[in-house]
Amino acid sequence: MTSLASGESVFTIVLSHGPLTRAQIAGRTGLSAAAVTKAVRPLMAAGYLVEGPGEGSRALGRPATLVRVDAGAAFFVGVKVTGDEIIAVLTDLCCRVRAAARLPLTGRAPERVLPVLTELVRELLTEADGFGVAVRGLGIAVSGDVDVDSAEGMVRYSPFLEWREVPLAGIAGTATGLPVTVENDVRALTVAEQWFGAGVGLDSFALVTVGAGIGCGLVVHGRVVSGAHGVAGELGHVSIDPDGPPCYCGNRGCVEAVAADPAIVRAVREVTGRPVTTPAEALELARAGDRGARQVYAAAGQAIGRAIGSVVNLLGPERVVISGEGLAAYDLFADGIRDAFAAAAFGTAAQCDVVTRPLPFEEWARGAAATAIQSFIGSATSATPVTSKEQSGVHQ
Amino acid sequence: MTSLASGESVFTIVLSHGPLTRAQIAGRTGLSAAAVTKAVRPLMAAGYLVEGPGEGSRALGRPATLVRVDAGAAFFVGVKVTGDEIIAVLTDLCCRVRAAARLPLTGRAPERVLPVLTELVRELLTEADGFGVAVRGLGIAVSGDVDVDSAEGMVRYSPFLEWREVPLAGIAGTATGLPVTVENDVRALTVAEQWFGAGVGLDSFALVTVGAGIGCGLVVHGRVVSGAHGVAGELGHVSIDPDGPPCYCGNRGCVEAVAADPAIVRAVREVTGRPVTTPAEALELARAGDRGARQVYAAAGQAIGRAIGSVVNLLGPERVVISGEGLAAYDLFADGIRDAFAAAAFGTAAQCDVVTRPLPFEEWARGAAATAIQSFIGSATSATPVTSKEQSGVHQ
Repeated sequence: MTSLASGESVFTIVLSHGPLTRAQIAGRTGLSAAAVTKAVRPLMAAGYLVEGPGEGSRALGRPATLVRVDAGAAFFVGVKVTGDEIIAVLTDLCCRVRAAARLPLTGRAPERVLPVLTELVRELLTEADGFGVAVRGLGIAVSGDVDVDSAEGMVRYSPFLEWREVPLAGIAGTATGLPVTVENDVRALTVAEQWFGAGVGLDSFALVTVGAGIGCGLVVHGRVVSGAHGVAGELGHVSIDPDGPPCYCGNRGCVEAVAADPAIVRAVREVTGRPVTTPAEALELARAGDRGARQVYAAAGQAIGRAIGSVVNLLGPERVVISGEGLAAYDLFADGIRDAFAAAAFGTAAQCDVVTRPLPFEEWARGAAATAIQSFIGSATSATPVTSKEQSGVHQ
Repeated sequence: MTSLASGESVFTIVLSHGPLTRAQIAGRTGLSAAAVTKAVRPLMAAGYLVEGPGEGSRALGRPATLVRVDAGAAFFVGVKVTGDEIIAVLTDLCCRVRAAARLPLTGRAPERVLPVLTELVRELLTEADGFGVAVRGLGIAVSGDVDVDSAEGMVRYSPFLEWREVPLAGIAGTATGLPVTVENDVRALTVAEQWFGAGVGLDSFALVTVGAGIGCGLVVHGRVVSGAHGVAGELGHVSIDPDGPPCYCGNRGCVEAVAADPAIVRAVREVTGRPVTTPAEALELARAGDRGARQVYAAAGQAIGRAIGSVVNLLGPERVVISGEGLAAYDLFADGIRDAFAAAAFGTAAQCDVVTRPLPFEEWARGAAATAIQSFIGSATSATPVTSKEQSGVHQ
C-alpha cells in the first residue's frame, strides 16, 4: 500500500485547487490536520507555499488562513520533443506559462536533437533572468519507454525518434546545468491535465492521444499509472484485430497500425492509388469526398473506439479525454469512435464521459514542466533535510 | 487525490504484514509516526488491534512494541455464490478460516438462492457461537455489476445468475440480522489475494479468472480498482477480434465468447459434431486427443493471452495471476496463452510475471469475508464516533 509522500500530495492539491485552508487540504488529501500542518511547514519554510488571510471567509470568529503556492518562488522549463521541432515553455511554480519558444529539428538522432534542445533551454533561462527568478528544473517529454527511476533519465526505446538507451537526463543535465526529469510525453501531458485540465478533481481518467502515434495516459486512484517496468498506457499496442495490419512492434492489428498518421497515410495511398505521403494530403483527399480515403478514417475511428472500450471495461474511468494533433481529422473519426465505443462498453461502463479536447504542443511542454515541479517538490520534501546550500539556486 | 482513510490503511497493513512496530507501519503506509499513532489508538480502544513487546528486537534499549490484529475480537462470514452451490466460510478478524460449509442450489433465481444462503449463514453463526465470538458482518461475492456504494448492496446485473436490480444486501441483512457487504466476486477474491495471496506487498497486479466466465481483478497503486460507475476488470468483455463469435453482451469477439466454459463447450460441439454439453465432457474429448477439441482450447488460450497482453500494455502490473476453475484445462491453454502474450506484450511490459494459482471456492468466500472486514473496520474508523450501543454485537 504505497502513497504519495504527504508533502508532495499537499503541494499538488494546493497547486490544483488552492488557495485552500488547512482543513480543506486535509479533506482533499485524506490526511489528518496534524499531518497537513507537518507537511505544510517545510514547504512554507522553503518559501514554496505561503499563507494569508482568506477574503470574506471566517470560521470561529477568526479569518480562515489560506495556503497557496508562491508562483514566483521558482521557475521551470518544460520541453516536448516531436519529430520535427522542439517546443519549450518557461513556467512558474504554479506551472503557469510565462514564456514559450519553438525551434525546428534537422534530424531525430540524439546528436541533432540535443543541441537544439540546449539552445532552446538557454533562451528560456535568459527569459527567466529577466524575471529575476531562478530556474530550478528542466522537464523533458519524449515518446516511448522512459526509465523514470534511473538517475540518467534513460530513454530505453523511442520508436518514433528511433532512440535506444539514450541517457537523456544525464546528457541534458550536463549541457544545461539543470536538474532534469525525463518522462514519457503522454504521461507528462496527463499530469498537466490532472493538475489543470479535464482531469482536475477526478479520481480516474484516461487521456487518449491520436496523431503520429496513439498514446494513453491513465490516472487511477488519483495518480498517473507508470507501470512496474516502465511501460503503461500503451494503447497504441493494444491489438484489436488478429487479422489486422502488421505493426512495427511485431504484433498484428495494433491500434497504432490502423489509426496513427503513418498507418492512415499508407492505407489511403493503397486504397486510392494516389501518391499521398503526408497526413495533410490524406486529410485533404478525405475532405474532398474520396470514398476510399473516408473509409480509412472511419476504420481508424472504429479502432480507436474499440480500444477506448477496452480501457473503459477494464478500468471504468470517470472520463476519457481524446486529444492529440489527430483531432484535426476528428470529424472523420467521430462516427467510428462513437459506434465502436457504444458496442464495446459493458453495462454501466458506457456511462463514462468521452470528450475531445485540443491541446497544443505547448500544453505537452507544460506537462513536462509539471513533472519537473513534481521532482523538485519531491526532493524538497524528502526525508533528507534541505540544507541552505542545496536551497541556493541552480541557475542564478 | 483520494486515499484510504488512515485507520483502514493501518489495519490492512497490520493484517497482511503484522505484527509490526509503529515505525514499520509508518514505513509501509507512508503515514507519519503521529498519524500512525492516531490511527492505531481507536482500533486498540475497540480491541481490534492489540500490542505487546516484540521478541528479541530492541530499539534504543527498550523492546520494540509490536502491533497485531486480535483475531478473536470479531468473526465474519464470507459467501461465494456460484451457479450450482453456495460456498461459505467463517473467519476471524485476521480473515483466517475457522469453519466452512457448502450447500447446493436448486435454481439461480433470487428466491431460490436467498433461502439457501440464509441457511448456510445460520449454520456458521452457530459455529461462531461455539467459539463464543460475535459475527460482525457478512460478505457476499457474486459475479456481475454490483453497486457497492448503494445501501441495499444492489446487484445491478449478473448475467451468470440472470439477476437484474436485486437489492441483495438489503434482503440478506433482513434475513440474517447482519451488516452485509456485497461485492463483485472477482474483486472480492482480489482483496484476498492482496491481503494473503500472490498479491501481498505488490503495488500493482492483475488476477485473471478463467472458467464459467472470464473475470479480472486489478490492483493499481495498492488498491483494488472498482470503476467510477461500478464496472471494472471486465476482461471477459474486452473484444480481441471484430470477426469473432457474438457475445451475449451484444459485441463480437469478447474473450468470454471465445474462452469461457460455455463458449468452449459450444465450439467443441460444433467442431467435433459430438453431443458435448459440459466442460468436463469437452475436456475429456480434448484429453483423449481429439484434434478439433484441442484446437478450441488452443484458440481459447490465445484469446486469454491476447487479453492479458492488453492489460499488461495498459497497466504494466508487477504480476498477473491466472486462476479460476478453468485452470483444470490449463495444460491445453498454456501454449496459446504464452505465445499470444509474448506477441502482444510491448517492450519491457513483457517482464511482467505471469503465474497460475489454483484457488478453491473457499478462497473466493474468504475474499467476501475480507470485504466484510474492510466495511467493518471502515465504519469503525470513520469520522462518526462509534457509540457503545453500536459496539454491542449484532449476533451474540
